[in-house]
Amino acid sequence: MTTQNIASDFVALLKVGKDHEAAARYNADDIVSYEAMDGPMAEMRGKEALRQKGEWWVTSHEVHSAAVEGPYVNGDSFCVRFTYDFTRKETGERLKMDEIGVYQVKGGKIASERFFYAT
Amino acid sequence: MTTQNIASDFVALLKVGKDHEAAARYNADDIVSYEAMDGPMAEMRGKEALRQKGEWWVTSHEVHSAAVEGPYVNGDSFCVRFTYDFTRKETGERLKMDEIGVYQVKGGKIASERFFYAT
Repeated sequence: MTTQNIASDFVALLKVGKDHEAAARYNADDIVSYEAMDGPMAEMRGKEALRQKGEWWVTSHEVHSAAVEGPYVNGDSFCVRFTYDFTRKETGERLKMDEIGVYQVKGGKIASERFFYAT
Repeated sequence: MTTQNIASDFVALLKVGKDHEAAARYNADDIVSYEAMDGPMAEMRGKEALRQKGEWWVTSHEVHSAAVEGPYVNGDSFCVRFTYDFTRKETGERLKMDEIGVYQVKGGKIASERFFYAT
């Protein structure tokens, strides 16, 4: 599969809310994830660690609306834009998030993901 | 200046159409630009080459509307989303473009830019 094929299928799954299936199908076992924050989630390694992070996110946030735009492709990489309206269950805070993910593909799998936030 | 400062100022200039001023102020002399296309513009090097490319774009396209969103920041990098409605003067073709630029900052200047297109 080309980067374009992978990007299109990955994003098609995200657009119908199948985030776990997208990650299960395309994340490399040794994927590295870079968040734009300090702390334990700044750099996470491994498909299983990211699966757990995804589960944590889903159970600790209530999503009111979400939009996924893309993919935007260049060479071995692609971008996806996410906009969310959600409530953090722990605090009751309602927040909007505007985020771009940049994914790098190697050998048919996503080798890294890096998230950028509107500031 | 931090990446956040540079990203904010750079994007503020783009939002008011001052693309040339943004590039003049922040592009490194040896900036590398990666386009998602084959041909002579796939990889361009140098601030002056990019200035000429920018001039070519402006003179050969008529822009009907443009929107700039961002910046989206992570570490030494930031993203900008561009949406354009324009006409290619040579062919008269009217096109929409939805594009994300990823910029890497080194030593207070933009060392590279990479453009991704919605597909």
